[in-house]
Amino acid sequence: MKTAVLGTGRVGRTIAARLAELGHTVTIGTRDPETTLSRTAADAMGTPPLAAWAADNPGIDVARFADAAAGAELIVNATNGGASLDALAQAGAENLDGKVILDIANPLDFSHGIPPTLLVKDTDSLGEQIQRAFPAARVVKALNTLTADLQARPGLLSDPGTVFVSGNDADAKNTVTGLLKDFGHQDVIDLGDIKTARGVEMLLPVWLRLYSALGTPQFNFKIVR
Amino acid sequence: MKTAVLGTGRVGRTIAARLAELGHTVTIGTRDPETTLSRTAADAMGTPPLAAWAADNPGIDVARFADAAAGAELIVNATNGGASLDALAQAGAENLDGKVILDIANPLDFSHGIPPTLLVKDTDSLGEQIQRAFPAARVVKALNTLTADLQARPGLLSDPGTVFVSGNDADAKNTVTGLLKDFGHQDVIDLGDIKTARGVEMLLPVWLRLYSALGTPQFNFKIVR
Repeated sequence: MKTAVLGTGRVGRTIAARLAELGHTVTIGTRDPETTLSRTAADAMGTPPLAAWAADNPGIDVARFADAAAGAELIVNATNGGASLDALAQAGAENLDGKVILDIANPLDFSHGIPPTLLVKDTDSLGEQIQRAFPAARVVKALNTLTADLQARPGLLSDPGTVFVSGNDADAKNTVTGLLKDFGHQDVIDLGDIKTARGVEMLLPVWLRLYSALGTPQFNFKIVR
Repeated sequence: MKTAVLGTGRVGRTIAARLAELGHTVTIGTRDPETTLSRTAADAMGTPPLAAWAADNPGIDVARFADAAAGAELIVNATNGGASLDALAQAGAENLDGKVILDIANPLDFSHGIPPTLLVKDTDSLGEQIQRAFPAARVVKALNTLTADLQARPGLLSDPGTVFVSGNDADAKNTVTGLLKDFGHQDVIDLGDIKTARGVEMLLPVWLRLYSALGTPQFNFKIVR
């Protein structure tokens, strides 16, 4: 499948590499590839410069958001939640029409300190905001409930746990569910329409506190029943 | 242990019966015992009248909130979340001082329809509101993340999953954790101080959507790691 991953942070890189490993065509999208690729130092989060990652992943093109999205059938939103609507606008509505958007982003608000709160919650969600902004796209919220390594390789846990899909389009959810199973996810629960993204986005506050209590992000939610 | 359970709904009754079964002294508290015990019909939720339940549980006294709380070492808040602060005020601050309050309530707001939203979230929680209102009490948030039957008898699931405790007082959390283990919970995660109740209260939105997607409330979250 021809895919684009928007966002070059840890989540974007991890998902892009995993998609490529599984045989998909991948372009990773960023706002300004020239500037981003010219950086030689790690960022404030300790993430190595994109150029080094790109050199290690020669099969993955780096392109502007719009150029990445234009050729893709499936577009992964791995941008920061607070910047996602702007990044997708840069990708261009005409490049999103009819496409599956796998939205992994969390709308985190760091302006009140740590742990972050949510920019939108309970009566709305980022997933719904994206679906409203791009009504011809087929948004599926998924994978925002676990750390990047486990999104891409759930088998790193002896029990991989559960992941969730939320979206209005059944075919798009089937496409994403197939991808999740290829990644190694075994238990995928379809929560319903895109409004159910409110539920999974509101998992972040307890995820953040579990990260602190357990001292590691290497955990997942499992729905036992 | 001498315990009081405030609230005579399904959660209150289930917890009260389980505590009694485990050998604790239990008084179940309500606003107006005479009126409540005089009802002969099931309520709007289909819950049988309290008098019938009380007749089946002769070892459990029914009393006003204040009378129930006065003699108890541990007080379970099983009232509706929107009414909890008022119910605890009726119980009387002097009857809560130094006591462990096990707060099970969820601050659900049904005014916007189904599924309910949360009355307080993300920057505050019901657990914190109770702790602030009764600073000499020792509030522990727990068990609000699963259905009443599984709160009391997690062994009904072949894998019981995980429960959480949040609170400022280590001894109070130890007391509650001991009780949870007596109920049958095997994996109890201490999330930290009472502020971490924000995380577990924000699990409700996804819990409600899972209930809808799975068609049953007989499930639990498990943290796989």
